Amino acid sequence: MAEQLAKDAHFAATILKTLSDTERSDALSKIREGLLQAKDSILEANKQDLLLADQGGLSSALIKRLDLSKNDKFDSMCDGILDVAKLEDPLNKVTLARELDEGLNLYRVTCPVGVLLIIFESRPEVIANITALAIKSGNAAILKGGKESLHTFKAMAEVIDHVLDTKTRVPSNAIQLISTRGEVSDLLVQDRYIDLVIPRGSNQLVRSIKDNTKIPVLGHADGICSIYVDEFADIEKAKRIIVDAKTNYPAGCNAVETLLINDKIVHSPSYVSILESLASNGVTSHLVPELLSSLPKVLKEKYEKLFVEAKESDFHHEFLSLDIAVKPVSDVKAAVGHINRHSSKHTDAIITENDDNAKIFLNGVDSSGVYWNCSTRFADGFRYGFGTEVGISTNKIHARGPVGLEGLVCYYYQLRGNGQIVGDYQGGGGKRAFIHKDLDVKGIVL
Amino acid sequence: MAEQLAKDAHFAATILKTLSDTERSDALSKIREGLLQAKDSILEANKQDLLLADQGGLSSALIKRLDLSKNDKFDSMCDGILDVAKLEDPLNKVTLARELDEGLNLYRVTCPVGVLLIIFESRPEVIANITALAIKSGNAAILKGGKESLHTFKAMAEVIDHVLDTKTRVPSNAIQLISTRGEVSDLLVQDRYIDLVIPRGSNQLVRSIKDNTKIPVLGHADGICSIYVDEFADIEKAKRIIVDAKTNYPAGCNAVETLLINDKIVHSPSYVSILESLASNGVTSHLVPELLSSLPKVLKEKYEKLFVEAKESDFHHEFLSLDIAVKPVSDVKAAVGHINRHSSKHTDAIITENDDNAKIFLNGVDSSGVYWNCSTRFADGFRYGFGTEVGISTNKIHARGPVGLEGLVCYYYQLRGNGQIVGDYQGGGGKRAFIHKDLDVKGIVL
Repeated sequence: MAEQLAKDAHFAATILKTLSDTERSDALSKIREGLLQAKDSILEANKQDLLLADQGGLSSALIKRLDLSKNDKFDSMCDGILDVAKLEDPLNKVTLARELDEGLNLYRVTCPVGVLLIIFESRPEVIANITALAIKSGNAAILKGGKESLHTFKAMAEVIDHVLDTKTRVPSNAIQLISTRGEVSDLLVQDRYIDLVIPRGSNQLVRSIKDNTKIPVLGHADGICSIYVDEFADIEKAKRIIVDAKTNYPAGCNAVETLLINDKIVHSPSYVSILESLASNGVTSHLVPELLSSLPKVLKEKYEKLFVEAKESDFHHEFLSLDIAVKPVSDVKAAVGHINRHSSKHTDAIITENDDNAKIFLNGVDSSGVYWNCSTRFADGFRYGFGTEVGISTNKIHARGPVGLEGLVCYYYQLRGNGQIVGDYQGGGGKRAFIHKDLDVKGIVL
Repeated sequence: MAEQLAKDAHFAATILKTLSDTERSDALSKIREGLLQAKDSILEANKQDLLLADQGGLSSALIKRLDLSKNDKFDSMCDGILDVAKLEDPLNKVTLARELDEGLNLYRVTCPVGVLLIIFESRPEVIANITALAIKSGNAAILKGGKESLHTFKAMAEVIDHVLDTKTRVPSNAIQLISTRGEVSDLLVQDRYIDLVIPRGSNQLVRSIKDNTKIPVLGHADGICSIYVDEFADIEKAKRIIVDAKTNYPAGCNAVETLLINDKIVHSPSYVSILESLASNGVTSHLVPELLSSLPKVLKEKYEKLFVEAKESDFHHEFLSLDIAVKPVSDVKAAVGHINRHSSKHTDAIITENDDNAKIFLNGVDSSGVYWNCSTRFADGFRYGFGTEVGISTNKIHARGPVGLEGLVCYYYQLRGNGQIVGDYQGGGGKRAFIHKDLDVKGIVL
């Protein structure tokens, strides 16, 4: 069954990729209309989920995230689909054009990846978001959302399916919802038909998916972000940035987990004020033994419980809470070395007013985001101006950092000739030489 | 041991990525000089390999490929290193620049992938080639060449190691040679330190590597290329192209393996002349039963042995010999459908004078290369004007088709601010709106 589902998605993808931007964007408008018309029944399904969540003892904060009826959440979810529709078409862009010889032209053209398997959390609006991104980028998608919103997802998927089937040129198999973890496992072996897996969720989920598939996985397991406070840091900036990066949303993957402080600052009033600003915001600092033993008296007395001894493993650890591991380093190079050994290649920042040290850090750190004098929390597709994101990648290939539409496309080569054969050219047995003249890609419409 | 080797490469990569283009290119010049100076001892090692190959009963054609002393092969190998050095720097290019807010600028910057594990064939010049591509693109590489050239590889690797160590800023661990398959297996589990595996070799080799690693693999197992002869084909072009694509180098991954012929041509003189041109070039056509049973008498009598019945599996098969599978299809859409189901996403071509059918084919076929009126044999980094290639990718993400320097780089995001925190902005708890103003990337030097 998983094979048939994947095969159907694959076949739908081969149709979807041939549709124009107008046809894809029009389908998104129709989906929006369909969802708006079905608002009542979707909110009814959503109520069922909320009731079950309440009975299941979910926290009120989580239940609030599931609730589609609050404020204008439903309508802004629908408007979000239009926002994606209005984005520039990511497909059929010519990114290289080269005359290989007279009448033999090479074009590199953007195209969809193919079939995506996307596993996401329980926020109901995410299914609309991801559906929009997938169709806009010409990719078929198999979707699995968190079980807490199952009824809502099912109601929305039915609407999407019906709209695609009756009102658009997008095959309805381009968007398919599955509802169990077992189905995910069965799909992870369909590497012949599924081209990319995008898991959004806990570290365990992402790790277990990476361990169980040959399909490329886009995303991140950990977000172990570090901030290095340089010898030449503006301490007021440092404090604001560190507190923001730690406390703005501690459960976020872009929250800071490790604080590296230049040796020359340690034991200075600056150091004390950084630790104090963390403590006064309720953050527990996990200090390496040398820092803990020399903790200034003023801090010890005021916030004793918020200073604990760091274990070595704390520097490989994503707390996702109001905790931070703190360690001194000798200089910017040592900070870069620590980060390249310990970080999860998500986002790391330096605080300094010294350009040379900033450059060493920006060039040296091997992460998807490397920041100078700003909070790691900026690592986000909306903040980067991508409209939205399918996830944040800590991979080393294809797409890194927050992934918007561009991360869902790749390219292929078109070669257009009028009868050319390799046997006529040098290297193929003939005498003709290649011209290899680059053409201006602007204005080329294939 | 494998872990230490991979760790060393990883550490070397973190240094290499910070070097300037001048430093990387200068290292290549020094390697070239070193190899030229060591020419005698390398050719001596090469003689050993040739002797062993001869004793081992290798064919004279293969032995010829191992011989570095013939003509100007050694010198042109060395010059090839300079050619790569002269290519445009693929690193530190700003491909997106955006003002998120006043004084908060986002830059997307190209960077190396990290550590490559490259497994390649026995041609001795390939090690020079790959070393040049790796260093130029700022990647560390662990190299394993075919065992038939082991002595040559070792002699060259020693020179490269010594030159890097004594005359350049590139750490010598950036290029490491391993010599056994066991070492490859041990390295395939080092996904913490190795970022990309590039296997060049037999289908079995590539498949076995893909099956045994979590590291992304760039390359292709099969090259099942098809040519579709449309109803509106120029038959003279078709014949030249098909014969070239099949016979120019039948062992090449870009040689054609499947011929799809429009129904309306089958049984016409055009069809007969296509089959005859294949047969007269010694190609065995594997015809589906309906074509075989209706084979024109003139062909049957003249070339009977060169027409055999096709099995279904022939259409999933890479012959790598003077064989081709032939099948009629009803129209261009059926051809696209067949190719998307059967091809290995390498390179497929249409022969037609009809623009509409060409477009349906170019947009519909889901392969790395989709060609119109030219030979599939053009799928090659040199012919595309990339200077050289590390391989041909049939992946759906990162890099497709012939992969040159660009396929060995990815990107990261730099964000440069002066104290900005997320808490001040909309969505993070504050009121400030983002500007999201795109800046012209031209002229930006970070």
